[in-house]
Amino acid sequence: MPSLHDSTRGRILFGGDYNPEQWPEEVWAQDARLMREAGVNSVTLGVFSWARLEPRPGAREFGWLDRLMDLMHGHGVGVVLATPTSAPPPWLGRLHPETLPRDEDGQVEWWGSRQHFAHSSAAYRRFAAAITKDLAARYARHPALTMWHINNEYCTYDWGETAATAFRRWLRARYGTLDALNSAWGSAFWGQRYDAWEEILPPRRAHYMKNPTQVLDFKRFTSDALLECYLAERDIVRAHTPHLPVTTNFMPLWQGQDGWKWAGEEDVVSVDLYPDPRDPLGARHGALVQDLTRSQAGGGPWMLMEQAAGPVNWRGVNHPKPAGLNRLWSWQAVARGADAVCYFQWRQSRQGAEKFHSGMLGHAGEEGRVFQEVKRLGAELARVGPRVSGARVTAEVAVLHDWDSWWAGQQDGRPSARLDHAQMLGAWHAALWEAHLTTGFAHPEHDLSAYGMVVVPHLYLLTDPAIDNLVAYVRRGGTLVCGFFTGVADGDDRVRPGGMDARLRELLGIRTVHEWWPLEDEESVDCGEFTGTLWSEELTAGDDAGVEARYRGGELDGLPAVLRRGRAWYVSTLPEPAALRDLLARAAKQAGVRPPLDGLPRGVEAVRRGDLLFLLHHGRGEVSVAVPGRYRELLSGEPAEGTVALGRYGVAVLEEASGRPHRFEGR
Amino acid sequence: MPSLHDSTRGRILFGGDYNPEQWPEEVWAQDARLMREAGVNSVTLGVFSWARLEPRPGAREFGWLDRLMDLMHGHGVGVVLATPTSAPPPWLGRLHPETLPRDEDGQVEWWGSRQHFAHSSAAYRRFAAAITKDLAARYARHPALTMWHINNEYCTYDWGETAATAFRRWLRARYGTLDALNSAWGSAFWGQRYDAWEEILPPRRAHYMKNPTQVLDFKRFTSDALLECYLAERDIVRAHTPHLPVTTNFMPLWQGQDGWKWAGEEDVVSVDLYPDPRDPLGARHGALVQDLTRSQAGGGPWMLMEQAAGPVNWRGVNHPKPAGLNRLWSWQAVARGADAVCYFQWRQSRQGAEKFHSGMLGHAGEEGRVFQEVKRLGAELARVGPRVSGARVTAEVAVLHDWDSWWAGQQDGRPSARLDHAQMLGAWHAALWEAHLTTGFAHPEHDLSAYGMVVVPHLYLLTDPAIDNLVAYVRRGGTLVCGFFTGVADGDDRVRPGGMDARLRELLGIRTVHEWWPLEDEESVDCGEFTGTLWSEELTAGDDAGVEARYRGGELDGLPAVLRRGRAWYVSTLPEPAALRDLLARAAKQAGVRPPLDGLPRGVEAVRRGDLLFLLHHGRGEVSVAVPGRYRELLSGEPAEGTVALGRYGVAVLEEASGRPHRFEGR
Amino acid sequence: MPSLHDSTRGRILFGGDYNPEQWPEEVWAQDARLMREAGVNSVTLGVFSWARLEPRPGAREFGWLDRLMDLMHGHGVGVVLATPTSAPPPWLGRLHPETLPRDEDGQVEWWGSRQHFAHSSAAYRRFAAAITKDLAARYARHPALTMWHINNEYCTYDWGETAATAFRRWLRARYGTLDALNSAWGSAFWGQRYDAWEEILPPRRAHYMKNPTQVLDFKRFTSDALLECYLAERDIVRAHTPHLPVTTNFMPLWQGQDGWKWAGEEDVVSVDLYPDPRDPLGARHGALVQDLTRSQAGGGPWMLMEQAAGPVNWRGVNHPKPAGLNRLWSWQAVARGADAVCYFQWRQSRQGAEKFHSGMLGHAGEEGRVFQEVKRLGAELARVGPRVSGARVTAEVAVLHDWDSWWAGQQDGRPSARLDHAQMLGAWHAALWEAHLTTGFAHPEHDLSAYGMVVVPHLYLLTDPAIDNLVAYVRRGGTLVCGFFTGVADGDDRVRPGGMDARLRELLGIRTVHEWWPLEDEESVDCGEFTGTLWSEELTAGDDAGVEARYRGGELDGLPAVLRRGRAWYVSTLPEPAALRDLLARAAKQAGVRPPLDGLPRGVEAVRRGDLLFLLHHGRGEVSVAVPGRYRELLSGEPAEGTVALGRYGVAVLEEASGRPHRFEGR
Repeated sequence: MPSLHDSTRGRILFGGDYNPEQWPEEVWAQDARLMREAGVNSVTLGVFSWARLEPRPGAREFGWLDRLMDLMHGHGVGVVLATPTSAPPPWLGRLHPETLPRDEDGQVEWWGSRQHFAHSSAAYRRFAAAITKDLAARYARHPALTMWHINNEYCTYDWGETAATAFRRWLRARYGTLDALNSAWGSAFWGQRYDAWEEILPPRRAHYMKNPTQVLDFKRFTSDALLECYLAERDIVRAHTPHLPVTTNFMPLWQGQDGWKWAGEEDVVSVDLYPDPRDPLGARHGALVQDLTRSQAGGGPWMLMEQAAGPVNWRGVNHPKPAGLNRLWSWQAVARGADAVCYFQWRQSRQGAEKFHSGMLGHAGEEGRVFQEVKRLGAELARVGPRVSGARVTAEVAVLHDWDSWWAGQQDGRPSARLDHAQMLGAWHAALWEAHLTTGFAHPEHDLSAYGMVVVPHLYLLTDPAIDNLVAYVRRGGTLVCGFFTGVADGDDRVRPGGMDARLRELLGIRTVHEWWPLEDEESVDCGEFTGTLWSEELTAGDDAGVEARYRGGELDGLPAVLRRGRAWYVSTLPEPAALRDLLARAAKQAGVRPPLDGLPRGVEAVRRGDLLFLLHHGRGEVSVAVPGRYRELLSGEPAEGTVALGRYGVAVLEEASGRPHRFEGR
Repeated sequence: MPSLHDSTRGRILFGGDYNPEQWPEEVWAQDARLMREAGVNSVTLGVFSWARLEPRPGAREFGWLDRLMDLMHGHGVGVVLATPTSAPPPWLGRLHPETLPRDEDGQVEWWGSRQHFAHSSAAYRRFAAAITKDLAARYARHPALTMWHINNEYCTYDWGETAATAFRRWLRARYGTLDALNSAWGSAFWGQRYDAWEEILPPRRAHYMKNPTQVLDFKRFTSDALLECYLAERDIVRAHTPHLPVTTNFMPLWQGQDGWKWAGEEDVVSVDLYPDPRDPLGARHGALVQDLTRSQAGGGPWMLMEQAAGPVNWRGVNHPKPAGLNRLWSWQAVARGADAVCYFQWRQSRQGAEKFHSGMLGHAGEEGRVFQEVKRLGAELARVGPRVSGARVTAEVAVLHDWDSWWAGQQDGRPSARLDHAQMLGAWHAALWEAHLTTGFAHPEHDLSAYGMVVVPHLYLLTDPAIDNLVAYVRRGGTLVCGFFTGVADGDDRVRPGGMDARLRELLGIRTVHEWWPLEDEESVDCGEFTGTLWSEELTAGDDAGVEARYRGGELDGLPAVLRRGRAWYVSTLPEPAALRDLLARAAKQAGVRPPLDGLPRGVEAVRRGDLLFLLHHGRGEVSVAVPGRYRELLSGEPAEGTVALGRYGVAVLEEASGRPHRFEGR
Repeated sequence: MPSLHDSTRGRILFGGDYNPEQWPEEVWAQDARLMREAGVNSVTLGVFSWARLEPRPGAREFGWLDRLMDLMHGHGVGVVLATPTSAPPPWLGRLHPETLPRDEDGQVEWWGSRQHFAHSSAAYRRFAAAITKDLAARYARHPALTMWHINNEYCTYDWGETAATAFRRWLRARYGTLDALNSAWGSAFWGQRYDAWEEILPPRRAHYMKNPTQVLDFKRFTSDALLECYLAERDIVRAHTPHLPVTTNFMPLWQGQDGWKWAGEEDVVSVDLYPDPRDPLGARHGALVQDLTRSQAGGGPWMLMEQAAGPVNWRGVNHPKPAGLNRLWSWQAVARGADAVCYFQWRQSRQGAEKFHSGMLGHAGEEGRVFQEVKRLGAELARVGPRVSGARVTAEVAVLHDWDSWWAGQQDGRPSARLDHAQMLGAWHAALWEAHLTTGFAHPEHDLSAYGMVVVPHLYLLTDPAIDNLVAYVRRGGTLVCGFFTGVADGDDRVRPGGMDARLRELLGIRTVHEWWPLEDEESVDCGEFTGTLWSEELTAGDDAGVEARYRGGELDGLPAVLRRGRAWYVSTLPEPAALRDLLARAAKQAGVRPPLDGLPRGVEAVRRGDLLFLLHHGRGEVSVAVPGRYRELLSGEPAEGTVALGRYGVAVLEEASGRPHRFEGR
């Protein structure tokens, strides 16, 4: 199968989305010149070009794209070519109104923006396949073409009639019989029993709470229906260019698609990443998304498809990137396995909905600070990129994450609406990041044997195989740290007897879960050496369990807060960040898992990729990092021995001074 | 007429909703055994069983229910049998889309939850009557049957077409002519005059504020339309079992039904009550709802149809009940007149929308703390219940409350959106509760002669008979304490000349109401000995009025804040809680109304029911209560003389030591 | 052309909306008597009378209005007669459902409120024209008639089908070709290219952000479509009464209508003004709206069509007017050019949606404080009004304001959702008001030569002629003070190269705009002598620019915050109020612009109108104002020399003691 290497050819891709339809062709030549100046070697074309390529049903206008592909090729810029199917032309909605999605209230999402397609509409799929086929046929042999990019940020839900029909078909395939469906959905409650498939609807607006398994299945179905759209287009382009990789870009930690399932169907896993430059936790969020994306890519190189050189335009207040931050975060992505550092978009739009979303070449033009920084980064990547391209990052800690659990747990009618799957992932991953532990993500049914420690921030839903997997992992010597409200439900969102799976309770030393005691916004619990927030639990420990921390005061006074049975830990509250960091560092140490360097200062991130050691400084002052041994710092070309000094947003890429050219393993 | 006594037969009913359709039949036997263990003597069956009983139009499947009724009977558990009409099967909405309600924006409320019925749809009413009839016919003679429960928590609004037609019919009956309607609605304003009945709509989404009398009438109509649904089913079951009482369960202090009118059509008044266990005012809220429900039942015994043994699942954060609280609040209900202490639901669901709503038998199972406490409570009720069942509570203070006034006052375009009818009821009732005064509720047109004191927290709308009633009450020697913004509008929501009815102004010593001065969120007014919030008024006092308190500072400096003319008081602001408590205690004392005991510690509630004195301690420490005389405490069986010690959430049921068996008056 | 003078005939109009349809005719006589007592000389009739005048299609009932017109005339009260077209009768919506507007979600706005008309519906326009024609024909010669009032507060949007058709027609007229439209809208972005006019929709609910130029054009279209409605009715009444002026009442600083364009079509510019009596900035808001309205009226007299004698009823908490405030704010309007001081409404409604909106004659009746104050004000206006009626106010400072810029700038996807056009106008106008500078408003393409100083708080969109106008104004010696994020976009909302127009950058001394740095809610920037909020910018100054203030600390440390190049200033943040006041006062002083008096105490407003000097005291204490020279104070009739003492909410109208009768220039 083709891989990202077929596009990078040993380099780091650098560039971005390029939408030249927005400008007269005289601007194109200027773009090509400036791309060369900035070290751009890859652009993504055609993401929103459907109406330009097919201005009316069946028409084809490829001339402009021919010229553009040639121009890019002439300037040494490779092209990631997109199918334009995320933004159907106005005529499609007008001629085929059923191609427009409806929300759960029954309201139409009209054209005039983007992503206005009903995923299960036959007309949409037919027209999408036709333009994809013609595009693939025309450019399959074009020398500029290096990758296919299907659609864009798949994210449409649909509660309308075509979706209802497809949902029923999906349910029939899943359950076979109505009896099985009624059983899985628990439809006996509130008298929701279905007597005919035609009675089943998407979970539309209702008087009160909806059936949670229906909602869960609708999320599964939606992810699968979008995946069908992707697969149809992927298979078309693959048939024309079996040698070129195919991708579709994820949004970061996006709930709408089952990221494990989707990634398995991509040759290149790519992601769009937009941390808030003003968020002091921006780098941690970046690290999380990068680790997740790399894990979706099987640990191998991945593609940063979109980031912003400056501000975005969809927050309430959109902050620019201070000098140096774009470079720092770009190198962070490379350190964590990216072989492509790309932007939305090359040239900032002057019109349309995103004209205040920054570009590599912003409104300020060539003289602008942003473009000057882009140029410097491009030069660095061109120089150092080939030394790192293709190398792997090895994580010894795994964070378990599963979309099914997210979907089931993030619904109405739970013990606490304050409990948020993504925030739990963030809190635990941040604690590992603060402890300088290199971390990956895994599905709870994955083979976990490669990891020295596995942590479960919060997996409300766990299937039987997943539970067996965790038990076996610990039995074979693994260290497991498990957060609260985990293993509560089975794969149908059916609460397990005892409120938590019995195997897990035994593994973790819990006899009885009497009550969950979620905490209010300003509430906390005293656990002796630390304070917990968000959640607490009224538990009875098993006889062979150790109590690592107890609640003090309040209704839970004296009850266990943190339990440990051998190598399996259970944390029944959310410890304050430093406490969670220390708890996980302690467990890791006992499991023999260590950070890449000892004694790292706060705010300095250290990651090994291949044989290189990356140091990333997320602060604005100066720090000195002790690095035992002799190195060469590749960005400066200078030797480094004993310590490395890092200034504001500083980056160092250290190669051991022995300097033997290493061979990186490919993906 | 049958009464609650026909179900209790001298006991306190203890049990809850039981929805065994959710489990395989092997679980039923376990349930029956555990019910017996827990002292359960009553369950409610069939609340949401329509789709199970009638899986397709006209089909009937009663076998499972036959077996269940027999099983309950065999274990000595009586059955409150519900008509299942609050959750129509999916096929009804599919075959008869007009049975689905529409909201004011015109959006359908689909099936997939519950209560998705358009109250005025002929098809809905026809199918509801048919299943009710067959249910009644089949189980009329079953020995387990002790009561009928119609529908569940009636609460659906409908702005759709069938509702529009029924609304017009209701308006014709109310007004006779369009001239009368146009006059009552003041349709001359904003040119809303109606020239044909067909022009009239429910108050649907509009450009700006709606006609307030149209909105008021729509609320009246909705309550009446739902009542028609109730009456139709009640009459069917009553025809089969004239000896058994009929009820439908109210939600606590629920705006959607005229509780006085509805209660008049019930044999048993029942309510669902879910105070937030974490709310320090939870017990006060409970007392209010209990006093209101008892008053709806004419002062006689009532039924606590639903409470939670632990957390509910519909708040943002759902708190468990700390140890002892379930017992305390259950005895509070009994002290205030309940002859039934029931739960939603017996066994906690493992599936569906309410699987995180607690049950008597929770996910933790038999060993769980909650079930252990349920068992102890069941034993207490079995032992002491017969001693109290059927007895009455006598209230000497009445709080006036009226749904019409709530509906009229709770609309847009009022002096202050911060003024809330239910909050005013709560604030005044809490002040009486803090003053340890036993309180009932009354409609403003009720006979008030039995009360030593009547308080009106806030009745924006008062009819002429109501005003005459108040005037006569004071004239005959009653003490009236009246809150602000009362008597402003007549029965059509027409502002009375002077901004307040002239008879009331005279009664209360007010010459002119110049302006209402509502207060902002953080604003307060200095009234000398106390602080007021929420509201203030610019008044001129009549010559014969006494000024009990004056505003100090601000625009109202020196104007009267509290007026008194003889036994009639007017309070033009909302005094801080302690001040309102003291003001009402002072007025009560002057009216000769006293608490059951003097010198009660804060947090201890004392209520006499029949010849028993209940003491309820809402705090977590220890208190000692002085009780002049000699008693026996029935829960412990111990004698008590001079003082009673109450621990955390402690309860004492005191019987005078003379110990003669009293005969309680029945209802 | 007729003017306001044709209605005032040298007086100040005093009165209000009068909706006697609400009361039986016996009340009318009482009204007439009390109007005379209160000095009322003008009422507005018929604003919402359509259903009364035309109870069914084509019917006419004028008798009641005949009697009313005669009654008013008999009591010396002139009539402003309204076309009733803002509130169609229920039958119109029922018979012609397409006359009902739809919101962007497709939901109908039903009758039952007001303003439920689809502006572009042919049926609505036909019926509106017919009733207007008959009304005009019937009352054209009635001696009471003094002015026409078309519709009321035009404010309806419509996203429905008739609007879509009209929008396409409007776009065809604007752009001629689809190519021109596609170019202006930048539809190449997100593949929104239109291939047929029929594909174009109003900007309805969509999946994500909408096309901003489509949204801008839809706002332009909506203003124009409403203007067509106005013009059609205006032309009908004008044909019958060419000698009488025509108006329609604006809402204050209302976004929905292009106020410059509309005012050009009115004989009298009128406005409704409701500052919050509790808002300490209420008087500043009043001054802004009054200055804007006067400027729309070309600097000549204007009409205060609606204000409230007491509270309104549409705020969350509706505060009465403290004693004296109604008088003060009425005289403020006169000082700033009003020749009419009118209210909504004469007699407070007892029914309907606005029964808690105050009237001149409130619920408290004749004895109420409010009516007593109204009477005193009426007497003052009758006495002093003729001395001021018709006189002009001369402003030496202009604030530039443009609806196009408001519409373009107030959309999603901008650098900061916290940036608000109206708030910026308010902040800058308030600073000028605090500096006691008499201020007008102008469109950026207006002739500015009469102004000594021009300020631009924030004009995101500026056309080429507007930019040339500003450059020419400075070149000819004018002083320009320009706020941030100005001149960013052209007339199609296309971002100008460099992020800000090059001519403006040169004028203001800006070389490069690197980034906009909007600030969060609690964030501020240190600019040395002052603090800035809301916004900051990363700029490089031009070589010939002076830096008046620099940022200190943070990412912008040392960069220019306030630039100045000759007489052109650029302020890249929002200075705290006192700093902005001082900056503008300094610039004004250098431009030779001075307040009417020096040394005015804080809270005292001084305005010259004609040869009179108005002093208005917005505080509650006592102040003394130094007035060099000898005057007569017209309200008291007393002489004033050297100083004038003003009490709580005090007003003085000073005439120079020379006392020659001045002749005011008419409009």
